[in-house]
Amino acid sequence: MRFATRANGTTDGELMLVSQDGARCLPMGARWPNLLHAITDWNALLADAKTLSATLDAGGGDSVSRDTLLAPLPRTWQWLDGSAFANHGILMQKAFDLPTLETYPPLMYQGMSHRFLAPYEDVALPTEADCIDFEGEFGIITDDVPMGCSAEDALAHIRLILLINDWSLRAVAPREMKTGFGWIQAKPACSAAPIAVTPDELGDSWRNGRVCLPLRVEVNGAWFGNPSGDAMEYGFHDLIAHAARTRPLCAGTIIGSGTVSNPDYRQVGSTCISERRAIEMIEQGHPVTPFLSFGDHVRMRAGEDDSIFGEIDQRVAAHIATHP
Amino acid sequence: MRFATRANGTTDGELMLVSQDGARCLPMGARWPNLLHAITDWNALLADAKTLSATLDAGGGDSVSRDTLLAPLPRTWQWLDGSAFANHGILMQKAFDLPTLETYPPLMYQGMSHRFLAPYEDVALPTEADCIDFEGEFGIITDDVPMGCSAEDALAHIRLILLINDWSLRAVAPREMKTGFGWIQAKPACSAAPIAVTPDELGDSWRNGRVCLPLRVEVNGAWFGNPSGDAMEYGFHDLIAHAARTRPLCAGTIIGSGTVSNPDYRQVGSTCISERRAIEMIEQGHPVTPFLSFGDHVRMRAGEDDSIFGEIDQRVAAHIATHP
Repeated sequence: MRFATRANGTTDGELMLVSQDGARCLPMGARWPNLLHAITDWNALLADAKTLSATLDAGGGDSVSRDTLLAPLPRTWQWLDGSAFANHGILMQKAFDLPTLETYPPLMYQGMSHRFLAPYEDVALPTEADCIDFEGEFGIITDDVPMGCSAEDALAHIRLILLINDWSLRAVAPREMKTGFGWIQAKPACSAAPIAVTPDELGDSWRNGRVCLPLRVEVNGAWFGNPSGDAMEYGFHDLIAHAARTRPLCAGTIIGSGTVSNPDYRQVGSTCISERRAIEMIEQGHPVTPFLSFGDHVRMRAGEDDSIFGEIDQRVAAHIATHP
Repeated sequence: MRFATRANGTTDGELMLVSQDGARCLPMGARWPNLLHAITDWNALLADAKTLSATLDAGGGDSVSRDTLLAPLPRTWQWLDGSAFANHGILMQKAFDLPTLETYPPLMYQGMSHRFLAPYEDVALPTEADCIDFEGEFGIITDDVPMGCSAEDALAHIRLILLINDWSLRAVAPREMKTGFGWIQAKPACSAAPIAVTPDELGDSWRNGRVCLPLRVEVNGAWFGNPSGDAMEYGFHDLIAHAARTRPLCAGTIIGSGTVSNPDYRQVGSTCISERRAIEMIEQGHPVTPFLSFGDHVRMRAGEDDSIFGEIDQRVAAHIATHP
């Protein structure tokens, strides 16, 4: 099943079932007004979605209007972002001469979840001096996960899979990281691709709790990278078990993979500027690729068939301060 | 105005207006079903509360039934916890020989917000081996704060004041802090005292965005500390401005002061075990006070007049794992 959220004047939007080709959609109806509500009673939702899908299969439904699409969860209660690609950590440590972090247990921080930007919405940030960067990630949405859930049991709690851009401000990040408290200013709102899919939609590309698809990034129309999600050191089920050791996870929790990164980066590139700059520092002695400027465009898709998650295609813009 | 949330079978509970003596309450009614909703339209809520307060003043309303009280916000979208008492940081750095952290900008992490424990609810945690500790804090609830809000403008966004216990697992915390990513496992759900008050309720004890009242902690009925909130290095308005530099804050955002701590700790004690152990290490060469065991009780109140926020009075208990 494929789901999207359509703007309807509410903060949480309207939950839509989407056709296999991503072109048509149907509202899930009054029983399932939005995804944040629906995720709390997932099996009942899936049963209703199966009934509705017959209408879509028969060519029914509305055409998907790109400009009305929001993030699948425009807001949620919890966003826990991992950093599960070992290669990314190795490159950053090498370039910046950082201490080696133990890779067990998994790295994870809690980030802003009260707003996920729509896939085509401008990304408004206060200043280019913060060194604006993106991070291409896969993510999953859980239902209710009890405290103490094992990694094995956690697989069944992965209800939807997402494509996420975790916007990051690199001039701020090291200072916040040094405190040990994680990031507040360095991690503004993330963006998400419009279509959230159940794991079975990925077929063989969903293996060991990993999204085994290339994540394709373009900046201002030029290729930036297409590394694959299969290189995660931990699967999403491991990340769930890590997060749930001392807390239950509520339905609607989104867990991120961290920047997708592969050891053959010379061929497949990177999914964030910071990593490419680290490679340049290692190989050329200094960074070459600039961070983003206002007006720059960042596009993200996954797999060869772009319709799986749809795409994120955004412009970075100057935030205009409003009256308090 | 004083508000509380009463259990009514929903996750968010029912919003109640509470009398000055904390003994009686009235539901805010269908227009304001819960605080998370009401905080989005605060001035309209206050107008309705003013009308209702006449009934309470005249002796009307229900008696407050202690067992039905939840945290004022049983869940919310964002919990940002500062560490704004310089004395606490100085003691911890001295005891553990940590590098001195710059105190500007303020220290802050994002924590679990999808559940705040009720004031008399058992605190279920997986193991005593995690070194279970409490942190007595003041907190504030904001309405919508635009990105880029100044500290000066932020004062007007402080709608309610809270008393919070930020449960902490000290065996886990240093390992997570070392990653720079902040805390996931070391920071399970917090608890909150039942009554949230508008700043004017504190009278002269609300100064410079600080709660100038002693926070009184007892463990198993014995005094543990009563340091005052006036020693915050930053006011809550400064913490808001810090958090809002690169993100808007949604209505319902809770910001915490961090463990209340005073330089005259020999007289006023501490509001967390970890700090008392640090003092013991500095003064006696080794920690003496143990962390909590299952069955221990922790009680927190503020000021001399206990009715301001009501009290948190909880027992630590072993979490019983349930089926996935």
